[in-house]
Amino acid sequence: MNPTSALIVIGNEILSGRTQDANIRYLAVHLGEIGAPLREVRVIPDIADTIVATVTEMKARYDQVFTTGGIGPTHDDITSACIAEAFGVPLELHEETAALMEKHYGRDEFTSARQRMAMLPRGATPITNSRSVAPGFTMGNVHVMAGVPSIMQAMFESVAPHLKHGEPIDSRTWHALNLYESVVAAPLEVVQKHYPHLDVGSYPFQRDDGRRGIALVVKGTSQKDLDAAAGEVRDLIAAAGREPLEGEPSI
Amino acid sequence: MNPTSALIVIGNEILSGRTQDANIRYLAVHLGEIGAPLREVRVIPDIADTIVATVTEMKARYDQVFTTGGIGPTHDDITSACIAEAFGVPLELHEETAALMEKHYGRDEFTSARQRMAMLPRGATPITNSRSVAPGFTMGNVHVMAGVPSIMQAMFESVAPHLKHGEPIDSRTWHALNLYESVVAAPLEVVQKHYPHLDVGSYPFQRDDGRRGIALVVKGTSQKDLDAAAGEVRDLIAAAGREPLEGEPSI
Repeated sequence: MNPTSALIVIGNEILSGRTQDANIRYLAVHLGEIGAPLREVRVIPDIADTIVATVTEMKARYDQVFTTGGIGPTHDDITSACIAEAFGVPLELHEETAALMEKHYGRDEFTSARQRMAMLPRGATPITNSRSVAPGFTMGNVHVMAGVPSIMQAMFESVAPHLKHGEPIDSRTWHALNLYESVVAAPLEVVQKHYPHLDVGSYPFQRDDGRRGIALVVKGTSQKDLDAAAGEVRDLIAAAGREPLEGEPSI
Repeated sequence: MNPTSALIVIGNEILSGRTQDANIRYLAVHLGEIGAPLREVRVIPDIADTIVATVTEMKARYDQVFTTGGIGPTHDDITSACIAEAFGVPLELHEETAALMEKHYGRDEFTSARQRMAMLPRGATPITNSRSVAPGFTMGNVHVMAGVPSIMQAMFESVAPHLKHGEPIDSRTWHALNLYESVVAAPLEVVQKHYPHLDVGSYPFQRDDGRRGIALVVKGTSQKDLDAAAGEVRDLIAAAGREPLEGEPSI
């Protein structure tokens, strides 16, 4: 069994619609690649009780949990304190991180606001990275990262070698133009029944030029099953009188 | 108190990273406009037990719940059956919807796959809309919509007049170039303390031309408080030696 991953997106800016989330898809793709697929995402506000309760529930339910957002220097950045509370440990100055940040900013510019970013839950391991001197951190099975996508990605690259890995999730896709989901629903269900360990999905699309169709996708870890199931998918498109086109539609 | 909203995004394609979600932000913006702000989002897979448990929990916790995805004609479209189970009612052919769909497709083309889309939980009200003859539906305080963004938006427009409304959430934004969050953290917290019913946030940005800065945003329902808090935000930018620029940065 592959390890399971979950993501907690912490941020009023996503819930208000101010910001289009870009972290869910990045993590979904990269966690699939290392065989630790994303099983659930929660987007929650910057409210301490909510963060603590959500982290407590998710870290028990999934093999590894990621959080994004709320580790900056301002008053609404409360993620680190909430993680400490969820683990029942104090939030304290991480000496090594403080030394790195003081060296980076200079003593006069290592202000109290910036010192907040050197406060980690006791026992946490900093996630140092190429984009910010203020680190993310790992506490137990929870990996705490920044919300800004470029910094989040640098933190993920840094922590990735230490994550639980499994068999990579791979996929095969065929698509067809002018084909309705309702026409392939029955034969597609047969494919799903043939390969219960694969995930067989159907996704309508509409191209910029107005042409429509569906993409049929099989996902899983067994290359042999993926090839066989993709063959059945190709055949069911042909049987519906349409040309099977390999890969994702360009839309 | 404004009514609360929550969103359940049902779909393996978001969790696998195949699809970039576009529904969270749309609903966040429009629910804010009608004063029923989005308080939580969950993205969950096409697994019946998970859908039933999540709907059961969320419909008790929030004033209104929206779901997107899983109401098409294929085997992985199980949302309607799960909503029926969460409400303890049978899933049955909705006669009026079936009649509309049969008229639309013609008797021969109203296939068993399409008939699945006329199956609603007993007592549900269809969300007819301008984009698809197959409707969404409202069951209790749960509004069930399609995952395809254009269809979801048509369903939302159709159901919006029937939703719980509150005082619209409005906002004021000032931004500044070359200003660090750490510099404004302390004065910004003062603004938050002056206006506890507003949501005061700080968002770093980087323009395409490489220029950086922060956007400071106040959100809430009281125009008077918003104006006063925005004035304090403008003044704290000026006090930090930067030019206060009104509105969102163009990035």
